[in-house]
Amino acid sequence: MNMQNDLLIKALRGEKVDRPPVWMMRQAGRYLPEYQELRAKYSFFERVETPELAAEITMQPIERFGPDAAIIFSDILVIPQALGFEVTMNEGEGPRLPSPVRTAEQALAVSVPDVVDRLHYVMDAIRLTVQRLDGRAAMIGFAGAPWTILCYMVEGKGSKDFSRVKQFCYTEPEAARHLLDVITKTTIDYLKAQVAAGAQTVQVFDSWAGLLSPEDFSEWAFPYLKQISEALSGLAPVILYPKGSWYALERLATRTTASAIGIDWTVTPEYARNATRNEITLQGNFDPSRLMMAPNEIKAGVNRMIDRFGAQRYIVNLGHGILPNIPVDHARAFIDAVKEWSK
Amino acid sequence: MNMQNDLLIKALRGEKVDRPPVWMMRQAGRYLPEYQELRAKYSFFERVETPELAAEITMQPIERFGPDAAIIFSDILVIPQALGFEVTMNEGEGPRLPSPVRTAEQALAVSVPDVVDRLHYVMDAIRLTVQRLDGRAAMIGFAGAPWTILCYMVEGKGSKDFSRVKQFCYTEPEAARHLLDVITKTTIDYLKAQVAAGAQTVQVFDSWAGLLSPEDFSEWAFPYLKQISEALSGLAPVILYPKGSWYALERLATRTTASAIGIDWTVTPEYARNATRNEITLQGNFDPSRLMMAPNEIKAGVNRMIDRFGAQRYIVNLGHGILPNIPVDHARAFIDAVKEWSK
Repeated sequence: MNMQNDLLIKALRGEKVDRPPVWMMRQAGRYLPEYQELRAKYSFFERVETPELAAEITMQPIERFGPDAAIIFSDILVIPQALGFEVTMNEGEGPRLPSPVRTAEQALAVSVPDVVDRLHYVMDAIRLTVQRLDGRAAMIGFAGAPWTILCYMVEGKGSKDFSRVKQFCYTEPEAARHLLDVITKTTIDYLKAQVAAGAQTVQVFDSWAGLLSPEDFSEWAFPYLKQISEALSGLAPVILYPKGSWYALERLATRTTASAIGIDWTVTPEYARNATRNEITLQGNFDPSRLMMAPNEIKAGVNRMIDRFGAQRYIVNLGHGILPNIPVDHARAFIDAVKEWSK
Repeated sequence: MNMQNDLLIKALRGEKVDRPPVWMMRQAGRYLPEYQELRAKYSFFERVETPELAAEITMQPIERFGPDAAIIFSDILVIPQALGFEVTMNEGEGPRLPSPVRTAEQALAVSVPDVVDRLHYVMDAIRLTVQRLDGRAAMIGFAGAPWTILCYMVEGKGSKDFSRVKQFCYTEPEAARHLLDVITKTTIDYLKAQVAAGAQTVQVFDSWAGLLSPEDFSEWAFPYLKQISEALSGLAPVILYPKGSWYALERLATRTTASAIGIDWTVTPEYARNATRNEITLQGNFDPSRLMMAPNEIKAGVNRMIDRFGAQRYIVNLGHGILPNIPVDHARAFIDAVKEWSK
């Protein structure tokens, strides 16, 4: 008897499942008391760069709730680090690049590194986690999308309007394209290494895609998402998560080789299915704030969501990362609702 | 000969125009050196609460660029102030409510004030501005939408995810609805007073509407936008600006009495016209970051935008407020492009 939990991979391949798979973005995170214990003892980068710790954190939600997938505990800003940029993380204020890219010259000086060498600890953490998972859940690798990484590299931190990175693209398009190319090539090497280490699928987080107009998305985000999907094609299914870019669902579904698209809660299931022509697996899209509701209301909401998306070609998830103040029992109710779901 | 500039009002009424009207959200703002001079001398609330200063600031972009509308210099948070809440504004960090609403009891204790008495200085500023405008540009009044005001009143400040206000709505729906009702009634009184003072149209800013799922928008934003539009119906045309709520364009166009909808740059002109069934005037939607481009590129972009929206039932504007770092000549290029436009 095969004990492998292959629900996620089946959903990504469009194969029939008895129920949809479920996991939560940022499921290994601050809402978990066992994560807070490690957070009190080790700095952010100690947690990310110590394979034993990263694997332990990745496993925490698996041991507690038994979702159908584990996503490696890491950060999208390991790519700027691999490109030679310092990244600082002061708890509470989010990540910072103290020396961001501000001139064309600085951008043109960046070249593709040996990412497997520089980020070996991520691959080590994936190998360790795969052993511990022992088939109970699928292993997900991830990276930031090139546009989102460019945002951080130029802005130096999160922003309300990302006007600086847009200005950089508008006024120094060649330098911006060079940097996006370097990020893309590095990300492809990195994701391939994650797959070689045992990741069964990879998710690409375009957290800031929604700040772009449809035209700018075509120029500064889409081509790089397409390249990454194609480079991974045949190696592992790719999940693209272009937060806020409702207008790009059709072209991502029909003009890339991605296996799934993650959507946020501003998109209705009906709109998403229609925009993607029922051709691709969808993932999402419970509003993370709705996990503040009572557990029975969460379960009712999850059931309605599955009814609307349909149980096939669907991965139950939040529309964005779980919030730090969510009670553990509410997170459990979200996962349990899917496991208890029946046609 | 009638010297009245009636382009904006004609566009709002759907009457034929020779060219579309143009103004810029936050056109009286930090990018203007003459605004910075007053900002150095007077605090934010001195500027807002002194009719002479508010009128002078409102007139600054009119004197400099001659757009087709003036929007009264004020702030959406005058409504929480009128409801008895302290609002602080430390330059650089945005507005704060030091004692936000955190319990149902606090929410239920809020009642409709005599807003015309409390905010008389806004009406005084409008009267002064109308005199100075002398018909050169239309006078626009404004208020925040109830959902956006509720966000500030519960969160106490801007937020990345607005999880606290959503949690309040989900767990204390009656208290949230009471507060939204009070905000709505107060806003209606306030907008009517602005119209009586000389505002020829009013814009309702739902800056945080895009954080809501379509279902939550139906419950927590739409009914209040609809009430406000209906209450102003016959008095002045209403412009609704639900930033980020692309999914609500159809119902706002067809199920409210609003005269126009303002859209941000994530919505293409074609999508917006189609979603609103070509039935309503649209306003927008130049990405404010694009004003960093060279003036000739700005002009080309404005021309393309007018071609795509069409010159009728259209108000040229940005998709959000102008950014503080935009060169004055770039703002001028935006306005001039419209004035130079010809069929």
